[in-house]
Amino acid sequence: MKPRLSTRLASEFFGTAFLVAAVVGSGIMGERLAGGNAAIALLANTIATGAALLALILTFGPISGAHLNPVVSFADAMEGGLSVPEAIRYTAAQISGGVAGTLAANAMFGLPIVSLSRHVRSGGAQFLSECIATFGLLCVIWGCSRSRAGMVPVAVASYITAAYWFTSSTSFANPAVTIARSLSDTFAGIRPADAPLFIVAQFAGGIAATLLFRWLYPDLPSRARDVMMPHSVDFPAR
Amino acid sequence: MKPRLSTRLASEFFGTAFLVAAVVGSGIMGERLAGGNAAIALLANTIATGAALLALILTFGPISGAHLNPVVSFADAMEGGLSVPEAIRYTAAQISGGVAGTLAANAMFGLPIVSLSRHVRSGGAQFLSECIATFGLLCVIWGCSRSRAGMVPVAVASYITAAYWFTSSTSFANPAVTIARSLSDTFAGIRPADAPLFIVAQFAGGIAATLLFRWLYPDLPSRARDVMMPHSVDFPAR
Amino acid sequence: MKPRLSTRLASEFFGTAFLVAAVVGSGIMGERLAGGNAAIALLANTIATGAALLALILTFGPISGAHLNPVVSFADAMEGGLSVPEAIRYTAAQISGGVAGTLAANAMFGLPIVSLSRHVRSGGAQFLSECIATFGLLCVIWGCSRSRAGMVPVAVASYITAAYWFTSSTSFANPAVTIARSLSDTFAGIRPADAPLFIVAQFAGGIAATLLFRWLYPDLPSRARDVMMPHSVDFPAR
Amino acid sequence: MKPRLSTRLASEFFGTAFLVAAVVGSGIMGERLAGGNAAIALLANTIATGAALLALILTFGPISGAHLNPVVSFADAMEGGLSVPEAIRYTAAQISGGVAGTLAANAMFGLPIVSLSRHVRSGGAQFLSECIATFGLLCVIWGCSRSRAGMVPVAVASYITAAYWFTSSTSFANPAVTIARSLSDTFAGIRPADAPLFIVAQFAGGIAATLLFRWLYPDLPSRARDVMMPHSVDFPAR
Repeated sequence: MKPRLSTRLASEFFGTAFLVAAVVGSGIMGERLAGGNAAIALLANTIATGAALLALILTFGPISGAHLNPVVSFADAMEGGLSVPEAIRYTAAQISGGVAGTLAANAMFGLPIVSLSRHVRSGGAQFLSECIATFGLLCVIWGCSRSRAGMVPVAVASYITAAYWFTSSTSFANPAVTIARSLSDTFAGIRPADAPLFIVAQFAGGIAATLLFRWLYPDLPSRARDVMMPHSVDFPAR
Repeated sequence: MKPRLSTRLASEFFGTAFLVAAVVGSGIMGERLAGGNAAIALLANTIATGAALLALILTFGPISGAHLNPVVSFADAMEGGLSVPEAIRYTAAQISGGVAGTLAANAMFGLPIVSLSRHVRSGGAQFLSECIATFGLLCVIWGCSRSRAGMVPVAVASYITAAYWFTSSTSFANPAVTIARSLSDTFAGIRPADAPLFIVAQFAGGIAATLLFRWLYPDLPSRARDVMMPHSVDFPAR
Repeated sequence: MKPRLSTRLASEFFGTAFLVAAVVGSGIMGERLAGGNAAIALLANTIATGAALLALILTFGPISGAHLNPVVSFADAMEGGLSVPEAIRYTAAQISGGVAGTLAANAMFGLPIVSLSRHVRSGGAQFLSECIATFGLLCVIWGCSRSRAGMVPVAVASYITAAYWFTSSTSFANPAVTIARSLSDTFAGIRPADAPLFIVAQFAGGIAATLLFRWLYPDLPSRARDVMMPHSVDFPAR
Repeated sequence: MKPRLSTRLASEFFGTAFLVAAVVGSGIMGERLAGGNAAIALLANTIATGAALLALILTFGPISGAHLNPVVSFADAMEGGLSVPEAIRYTAAQISGGVAGTLAANAMFGLPIVSLSRHVRSGGAQFLSECIATFGLLCVIWGCSRSRAGMVPVAVASYITAAYWFTSSTSFANPAVTIARSLSDTFAGIRPADAPLFIVAQFAGGIAATLLFRWLYPDLPSRARDVMMPHSVDFPAR
């Protein structure tokens, strides 16, 4: 039995809020301090994001699974872990949490609470990047959940740390975070007009990875029952 | 049964001393070497602080819980883990340890043993930052202690690593550390006049997180009996 | 019993593809952003590679062992973990995966899909570097697999993170990755003409380490039956 | 029963050799690439050293304890873990391994195999730094070994990562490494004339920490029988 739905939705809300606050906030701080060197700003942004993900999945994973990402919730629904109505509510909690995170980051740095981003992120290379980034993310989640679920927080945080650098899009890989990042005209922002294609690429990559692991492991749903981490009372952490 | 109080207080003293020495000392070293690039100095400061926290919580956690932070000790008292007189003694050990850490850092770099900081840190954005930073810290502590207490050192160190960058105040999130940092006029310092508001914000954020988790988990006190880590002889580490 | 061979080969293919994409892609991103400071570019390249390795070994290790490296597969064959025909198929999967990773990285950054590298890497110091780097890598794998196989992903990722900096060749330490990196004329590339000597040095170092551990631990094959990580159904993870 | 002495001494030799190669080699690489920014060079040096320590303690810890440091071996002898003749042989293996590591690093970068360092490191602040650095290192080792020996590799690596930045000496904290670093006139070097005082400070700090933990935990020798990690066949890893 999992914790009651309201508890899990609160967990997804706060988890995604802190994740986005970390992404947006560290982008602002990095750009302010880096004296124009974009690599140093992105290094700070990367370290903050990876470290935040690790802490947040460890904190909220045992409550709601710490999906913090609609692609993860719908992939979980594909394998029977969540019902579709639950996945929709998870998504709503993630999007509203993400938006709250952007507002908080803007406020913590004394900026207007909301400012639509003008950061252009478009083109085939970026689309391919988001597709591959999310494909990899779901590979990591399914592969680890299947056999060593206790290491999922480490694996996901490490993966995103790497993906910030090996994709030209810096790996958003998350529709809720993409929407939230369109509301801050700072380092981590994305022009609202570019968000829809990012989201399409993310779902495409995530579904492909889920199908790959369904082929690799036909018994995946029963082995990786709790995504991303064990959060059922009757399904103990490994 | 926990270790005797004198042992635990010595643990809090040395733990906080090394934590503050790491924060202040790495700030001095970072600023000296970074050639004026504040992002590189803060990156060094961040890595040193996160790594020190991880080592220190692993070292002193099994003795006293490695609170190293009066907000944590009083939050623990709110949930019945410490008595109020114990929390007060923990706080005294943390503050004196923190001050010793600043003195040691200043001495290790050949600076005057004490120099009041002139680093201005004030305004609403900084107050909000400290409030959110400490709210998040206590969420991490309560969330992890509840289900995977062995990962608390990793989660707390990662959280602070991220929070250095996603808040405009660089996340002091600790009254004992705030007081200690006012005694070094270097990179990590804070003007003594700005310390009180930081401390108010820290307690406010920490109490809010404790109340949130009391609502999320009514049975939290019995599940997370030892904060931040198991340190009772009869309550084995998980 | 291990997973069926086709599953394991798919695992080696995708694992090596993501590893090379991370190495090559983060090299491109690092060089683009670093404003001419090679240390910052290599720092980004290092962090991305280490983090990717950790995530990928955690993901693919429980399927195929996550060798991702022909030297590891042949060392495993030396100790009886794989048959020689299996090691050859592992190698083919790793090389084809690595090449796919380079193509993906080039495409994600909008570059020509293939461009032969002109990055000269030759001379005795580089040869010695590759030899020592791969010697150390196999020491880490045999030493950890023998007693704490669950930590192999952390140990290998940490080792490569360090070796990027302590060798003059930046530690390719992997023939499949060496071949793949010859196909991108970017930061991480290697001139095709220089690849063969790198590969000779890598096998020499790897064989030497395997012989050393055979002397240190005559019972190694039975203790470290699954390399790099437990992936047999009847040989549970420790 | 521990592995036979020759195996353990080989383990200390190779472990210390790789540790010193990582310290000296990454110093050379960092300085060459950093374009004069000492903070970036030290950041690279720090990351390589911390990551190497983690990998090496995981690899060699289960064989010989991975002391890699005469202060650790003599502290272990103080508590009865090693006999004094064993500690002397450990020290000889560590010093010869360390020297081999310096030679290897110099060779890998095409430098003269040996060159006495001219890097001045003297004065009271540096002496105090080494004393505090080694005091902290032994606190970490005793504290973790007592209760969660499996985390010692993480704790020690994290501690040294931090200590590189919070001491003015960059925390050698190891007599064998100090001697070895005097033989390379590069970033990580130390003038031979300055080595003796560093070594005195290191032993003073290490003994003080051992006495502190003897007071905190009168039963320490029986609880932390294997330092730094379990390496007895009859004393299973925790």
